[in-house]
Amino acid sequence: VWGRAARQPPGLPLASCRAFSNKKIQVDVNESSGVATMKFKSPPVNSLSLDFLTEFCISLEKLENDRACRGVVITSAIPKIFSSGLDITEMCGKSMEHYAEFWRAVQEMWLRLYSSNMVTLAVINGSSPAGGCLVALSCDYRIMAENPKYTIGLNEAQLGIVAPFWFKDTFVNVVGQRVAERSLQLGSLYPAPEALKFGIVDELVPEEKLQEKATAVMAQWLALPDHARQITKSMMRKTLLDRLVAHREEDIKNFTSFVSKESIQKSLHMYMEMLKKKK
Amino acid sequence: VWGRAARQPPGLPLASCRAFSNKKIQVDVNESSGVATMKFKSPPVNSLSLDFLTEFCISLEKLENDRACRGVVITSAIPKIFSSGLDITEMCGKSMEHYAEFWRAVQEMWLRLYSSNMVTLAVINGSSPAGGCLVALSCDYRIMAENPKYTIGLNEAQLGIVAPFWFKDTFVNVVGQRVAERSLQLGSLYPAPEALKFGIVDELVPEEKLQEKATAVMAQWLALPDHARQITKSMMRKTLLDRLVAHREEDIKNFTSFVSKESIQKSLHMYMEMLKKKK
Amino acid sequence: VWGRAARQPPGLPLASCRAFSNKKIQVDVNESSGVATMKFKSPPVNSLSLDFLTEFCISLEKLENDRACRGVVITSAIPKIFSSGLDITEMCGKSMEHYAEFWRAVQEMWLRLYSSNMVTLAVINGSSPAGGCLVALSCDYRIMAENPKYTIGLNEAQLGIVAPFWFKDTFVNVVGQRVAERSLQLGSLYPAPEALKFGIVDELVPEEKLQEKATAVMAQWLALPDHARQITKSMMRKTLLDRLVAHREEDIKNFTSFVSKESIQKSLHMYMEMLKKKK
Repeated sequence: VWGRAARQPPGLPLASCRAFSNKKIQVDVNESSGVATMKFKSPPVNSLSLDFLTEFCISLEKLENDRACRGVVITSAIPKIFSSGLDITEMCGKSMEHYAEFWRAVQEMWLRLYSSNMVTLAVINGSSPAGGCLVALSCDYRIMAENPKYTIGLNEAQLGIVAPFWFKDTFVNVVGQRVAERSLQLGSLYPAPEALKFGIVDELVPEEKLQEKATAVMAQWLALPDHARQITKSMMRKTLLDRLVAHREEDIKNFTSFVSKESIQKSLHMYMEMLKKKK
Repeated sequence: VWGRAARQPPGLPLASCRAFSNKKIQVDVNESSGVATMKFKSPPVNSLSLDFLTEFCISLEKLENDRACRGVVITSAIPKIFSSGLDITEMCGKSMEHYAEFWRAVQEMWLRLYSSNMVTLAVINGSSPAGGCLVALSCDYRIMAENPKYTIGLNEAQLGIVAPFWFKDTFVNVVGQRVAERSLQLGSLYPAPEALKFGIVDELVPEEKLQEKATAVMAQWLALPDHARQITKSMMRKTLLDRLVAHREEDIKNFTSFVSKESIQKSLHMYMEMLKKKK
Repeated sequence: VWGRAARQPPGLPLASCRAFSNKKIQVDVNESSGVATMKFKSPPVNSLSLDFLTEFCISLEKLENDRACRGVVITSAIPKIFSSGLDITEMCGKSMEHYAEFWRAVQEMWLRLYSSNMVTLAVINGSSPAGGCLVALSCDYRIMAENPKYTIGLNEAQLGIVAPFWFKDTFVNVVGQRVAERSLQLGSLYPAPEALKFGIVDELVPEEKLQEKATAVMAQWLALPDHARQITKSMMRKTLLDRLVAHREEDIKNFTSFVSKESIQKSLHMYMEMLKKKK
């Protein structure tokens, strides 16, 4: 389990470390440190399916309500991939009801993660395109493995689709208007060193040092009194959170009508075929 | 003609390359690549006169409606100058009606360029103060000749005039609030290397490589599906575009009443005299 | 007196240099250069007490109304400290009325400084946490002594308190959303070199060169016509200034009810005891 040994203070019973394993995400709570770890383990590429998102939301809610838990590390159990983003099979050849249900789950995940009272730390130990990048951008801090083969970015435009306004605004809040404008138009996927340069991630660390670094960073954030940190975070993020809450149904309608267009269905199908051939 | 030879695929008839020359801007459309080139050729310094702006708008509209045209490169045919900005003679000793007509043309140019569905690439092969800088800032990407003698910036404050809010907001969208605040107050003109450092331009290239680089950059942008790129661009720029549309008449009134002030007329006259002596 | 000898042109009578000394801030106006200097001299750490803030506001108003004065340099007469920020004794064990009066004075200081028609230059010759940092952030330009022992930042979160929205927005306007979000949550105090890296200050200068640099920077800013510079500054800052003016009473209520909470009083008391032991 992530960091358990390292963070386990000597002499404390192992019972202080609880785990609740689900199907797609392994969650461990270290009660002595107050830090939970969520490890994505949904082969082959941790894609954000409806099931995955539902489990993600439930896990976040459990941790949010767990007074012993003050911070959460989000990372992947699958080599070379953090998360491949939204599961395209959920957007292909399904009913309008299904598209709406799926999109509501995507919104729900973001609303919970972006507004979390916990310190949220993304430990990006693999590639993280599109929705995977959104998960990382929604955390408080991003550490990425120092491997130029791993890329990250909101590359929706490359698939002929458009990142919704709250993906865009989350991105702008991290990298600023200009880098966001250029990157979203080009659907840029940045290798780790460039992701650092453009501010998409905060630090690069050799992959074998990620766990150690995560422990240190989390300790730094948890050294602050929770209450002041939480109010400050809310003050910074409230405008954007409120905007989605106010336009949630409209945003679902936009998504379902867009994704159900014949031209979009065609290009998503083509993209899926391409992915299948890759395997 | 810009890039024709380089981009002309072997075997294609030259007829695939059309040109419509006007008085002040040379426009060429390469139908095989889908890229147009607008070359400012209004001696001595490509100043944005009412005639120039009118021609600029008509040319943009033609290209916008040309389905064969997906991107436009904007550059200068005059050595050492991209554009010197708004033509001061249009603001000096003229009627209120003239000021209003002129300002409406400036707005119109920006509204068309900033909202263009085409990929807009500024190839800044000379100095580009004030309104010339605005033209560059309104494009999707900016390449500048690597020559520290060429400067760029919104230097209005140096002439005792004030850049209107949409010049300011276009600038903020490129360089951020802080750099904009300092630069606008100081009326800073940045030599190319500093312009790169502060994010006013995206890349510096030796002057003889500008054309080659422009072709490569344009190809990169055109590799994306138009539709997704266009919606993304609109999403990033809509707020600002809407703001000017909503306040257009008010903005014209502000300009005409400001520019017709005796003190402003005096300082513009002095500035013009200084320019004449320079020649 | 700061810069008097240096800026005094040879042959000018010393009478062109006026000074009005108060208890906590030494103000000198060099009439020939049009530059005033405000030197904080309120031992031990230039904390922003109610008296200090009142004097600060009166001094700013005097200078603002002095047509001979076009710029002001704000610095400290106390070694190693620019200003330690809000005086905690004003927030501890006092009446609700006192808290309200104190907070109104903090607002007033910021409203005057952030909207000043003068060129405002912070010469940060020592550490500058919390409210001290706000004073610096509210100026037009920031020069800091190149000494890694001097730190600057909005570290309120470390004391368990929260910087109000206009502290936050002033910070965002200088360093951008991302750096502000992270720094405010962590209550980061940055050593001078990091403060430069993150854009909190504009330049570092060896301490013995601060005065010379300040003179040069002020001359550069004063080379611009006042009117255009002032309108430009107002255009950049008006939104934020209006926001506090519109929510001023609400902001006072927020502060008084927050600071009077038992838990906050406790932690402020503990902090004060810690400071006393340090002496």
